Amino acid sequence: METIIGVIGAANASDEEKRASEEVGVLIAGRKCFLLCGGMGGVMEAACRGAKSAGGTTIGILPGPESSSANRFIDIPIVTGMGEARNVIVAKSSHSIIAIGGSFGTLSEISFALKSGIPVIGLDTWDVSEEIIKCETPEEAVRTAFELSSLRKKA
Amino acid sequence: METIIGVIGAANASDEEKRASEEVGVLIAGRKCFLLCGGMGGVMEAACRGAKSAGGTTIGILPGPESSSANRFIDIPIVTGMGEARNVIVAKSSHSIIAIGGSFGTLSEISFALKSGIPVIGLDTWDVSEEIIKCETPEEAVRTAFELSSLRKKA
Amino acid sequence: METIIGVIGAANASDEEKRASEEVGVLIAGRKCFLLCGGMGGVMEAACRGAKSAGGTTIGILPGPESSSANRFIDIPIVTGMGEARNVIVAKSSHSIIAIGGSFGTLSEISFALKSGIPVIGLDTWDVSEEIIKCETPEEAVRTAFELSSLRKKA
Amino acid sequence: METIIGVIGAANASDEEKRASEEVGVLIAGRKCFLLCGGMGGVMEAACRGAKSAGGTTIGILPGPESSSANRFIDIPIVTGMGEARNVIVAKSSHSIIAIGGSFGTLSEISFALKSGIPVIGLDTWDVSEEIIKCETPEEAVRTAFELSSLRKKA
Repeated sequence: METIIGVIGAANASDEEKRASEEVGVLIAGRKCFLLCGGMGGVMEAACRGAKSAGGTTIGILPGPESSSANRFIDIPIVTGMGEARNVIVAKSSHSIIAIGGSFGTLSEISFALKSGIPVIGLDTWDVSEEIIKCETPEEAVRTAFELSSLRKKA
Repeated sequence: METIIGVIGAANASDEEKRASEEVGVLIAGRKCFLLCGGMGGVMEAACRGAKSAGGTTIGILPGPESSSANRFIDIPIVTGMGEARNVIVAKSSHSIIAIGGSFGTLSEISFALKSGIPVIGLDTWDVSEEIIKCETPEEAVRTAFELSSLRKKA
Repeated sequence: METIIGVIGAANASDEEKRASEEVGVLIAGRKCFLLCGGMGGVMEAACRGAKSAGGTTIGILPGPESSSANRFIDIPIVTGMGEARNVIVAKSSHSIIAIGGSFGTLSEISFALKSGIPVIGLDTWDVSEEIIKCETPEEAVRTAFELSSLRKKA
Repeated sequence: METIIGVIGAANASDEEKRASEEVGVLIAGRKCFLLCGGMGGVMEAACRGAKSAGGTTIGILPGPESSSANRFIDIPIVTGMGEARNVIVAKSSHSIIAIGGSFGTLSEISFALKSGIPVIGLDTWDVSEEIIKCETPEEAVRTAFELSSLRKKA
């Protein structure tokens, strides 16, 4: 089984968030992990662009009914046609999750991950629980996500 | 079309939360609105018990694959078999929502409601957005929910 | 708990199918059962129109993200935003189902109902299993659905 | 984007169906396509075993809430927790689908695929539409699926 690290954040992201997302993507690929996200723009697209630039593999859990809506850096589009209910799948399919900024959709994914006991690493994201592991840099976030994913896979 | 007010909160609720939930249920029925919830125990069951004691009608959006899992005060069990993804339906099917306490499941429902522009009235619940309308009593919460539901139905 | 009879069939239905659907709706209301459907046009709308003309109550499990897409005879719109995945909910939430004609969406609902052991009564519909109870008239279909729903509710 | 071929069929499959499924899996891997399925036993497990024996990559769209329920040949478990509603995702995420035998769950997946215009290749499966392309051998089925997937990806 592959190690899968989720990256969540808004489609409507700031330049700074996109830069952090891209670096996170590069580092996930460097760890030989798969990057899973919601498959759309903003944080998701930037993270996928980073992962592909470093030879990684990307999975997009799409809300729409067609794979054509995926950003162009998605290798494996999972087509749900289920709208926001796909946020549950994004959360549950990740061995750990890195949250970058984010709006209400991101908050729903954080909620589902924490409910399922999936580690959430936060880069300047929602501050709703002490269980969220706050990190300051993409390096720290990916290193933490990698270590916790490995523990979770063994569990 | 009926006016539908959602009530959300934890299955594992305190006695005080259950008392408030029951009173909320009584008042929703008194307004001739339908009460919609996740159909399980705790806040959900207490609110339904209140609504039924006042002659109201209750809808439960169930996570499990059988209607037998509904609390015994549910008139209309909607059986999804979709686990936590049913939280999206709880949020989207309500004209307004009253959140009472709550854990991560409740937080996911608040997130989906705010994302969809559905009014959220809070009774000692998650404090994640200025858009949540804080109320102090069941009376104030139901009056506010009723007024906002009417506006939303006309929209 | 209310007795809920599902009515399934194509949005794109023939005049004959719509006439049968409307009569089915009238008869379901006459039995004091709730009518549940996918909430859209064709067979669904005709059945709801019939039910409302006889003072019944109608539930629509909507594929889209807004209640405004429901046909105008829906009392209780359940908003899923889940596209065709809502077909599972239509099947599982009914105590028995009457299938009228129908295309591939209807076939998926028949499949889910049979898989869950929910009785399927067919009026000139898909002939994929001996478990489908073929009926010739709306009267026969609703009488059979009513009797089987009562058995299932007790189970 | 990878080319993804879905394999559907019963968890409770005959020895002959499992042999065919395994060969289908070997041949899909030989074409450098990803194999997508429901992630459980029977046809799904046999197909994945075949794909892994030939160095392929497998995706499982799981109904349950944990990745531990996946068969041991799944590389990429997509955890939905959505029960049978995951059948929609199996259908929509495949560029073409090979159906091997199958019960009502398989029939629901065939329905969703045909509704979405996704090619369905049948090996002794449900005979519900002329749109299903009947094949006699795993070789013929995979060759046909591969050709139609390529056309669909370009569309």
